[in-house]
Amino acid sequence: MTIIRHELEPILANVVEARPFVFTAGAIADDLSLDVLGQTRQALADLDRYLALCGTDKSRVISAVIWLSDIRLRDAMNTVWLAWVDPAHLPARACIEARMADPLCLVELQIIAAKP
Amino acid sequence: MTIIRHELEPILANVVEARPFVFTAGAIADDLSLDVLGQTRQALADLDRYLALCGTDKSRVISAVIWLSDIRLRDAMNTVWLAWVDPAHLPARACIEARMADPLCLVELQIIAAKP
Amino acid sequence: MTIIRHELEPILANVVEARPFVFTAGAIADDLSLDVLGQTRQALADLDRYLALCGTDKSRVISAVIWLSDIRLRDAMNTVWLAWVDPAHLPARACIEARMADPLCLVELQIIAAKP
Repeated sequence: MTIIRHELEPILANVVEARPFVFTAGAIADDLSLDVLGQTRQALADLDRYLALCGTDKSRVISAVIWLSDIRLRDAMNTVWLAWVDPAHLPARACIEARMADPLCLVELQIIAAKP
Repeated sequence: MTIIRHELEPILANVVEARPFVFTAGAIADDLSLDVLGQTRQALADLDRYLALCGTDKSRVISAVIWLSDIRLRDAMNTVWLAWVDPAHLPARACIEARMADPLCLVELQIIAAKP
Repeated sequence: MTIIRHELEPILANVVEARPFVFTAGAIADDLSLDVLGQTRQALADLDRYLALCGTDKSRVISAVIWLSDIRLRDAMNTVWLAWVDPAHLPARACIEARMADPLCLVELQIIAAKP
């Protein structure tokens, strides 16, 4: 199997292709001064880019884990999630609370998608 | 690859088939007034149903993540887990503490299984 | 598909092969009296052993989730992580805070790798 790693950072790859799947790192917003709506939008835009690098897209997302710094942000995060997901192609998902690396980070999302 | 999504809710699918695997959402009890034993039983019954929808079963579970609202509930949860898992076909597993969407929720389980 | 389970414990398998992937349990140090550097080294040594049992190695790790008992341990854990990972073959990764089963446990790592 050929493994293809994209957007390398010192400690991780932001997305890794390993057929038949694509595995992302935990995506967070670039601008952590944003509220949870803005942070979720930016993190999802990163996921869109990661998927595109692998020749796939959000219609092929299979599974997601979402961490929120405060679980009470879930409803707000979900409004952005609902605007993003393809309603005909919803992934399995878990959403829990966790403290993340940067105390300003409100939301982090990690997904598995399929290659076409 | 054909992706098959079952038990759609507004924001997620409860289980997604993407050969050769099956990915579930985080399963929680229907009745969150139950104690951790009862909640674990109900969540595992949901997982049984999700696996059956995909033509597989608990003997083919590969990986699990279990979140507990209080990690001290682990021993109690494990008694139900042990009664559920196929001892000849144990999955890899991680079990950690996390706050979940509903403050009454004591346990949430997300699994990956193989298709036969 | 043949599923191969290694290092069985009463409630889980430490690593499960399900082609084309390998899924590990959450790995923790054997000696929980160690600091986060020592605990991370021991947990990563366990992961090396799990991967070897499945005929693969850290150059084929695809995805990782890392839980820290205190997210402020991340920089220290990362020094050991960086000494361990194959810089030409970095996985996708998420790292969040969570309480683990043993209150002395500072770090737990769960990975998915590819079979050669």
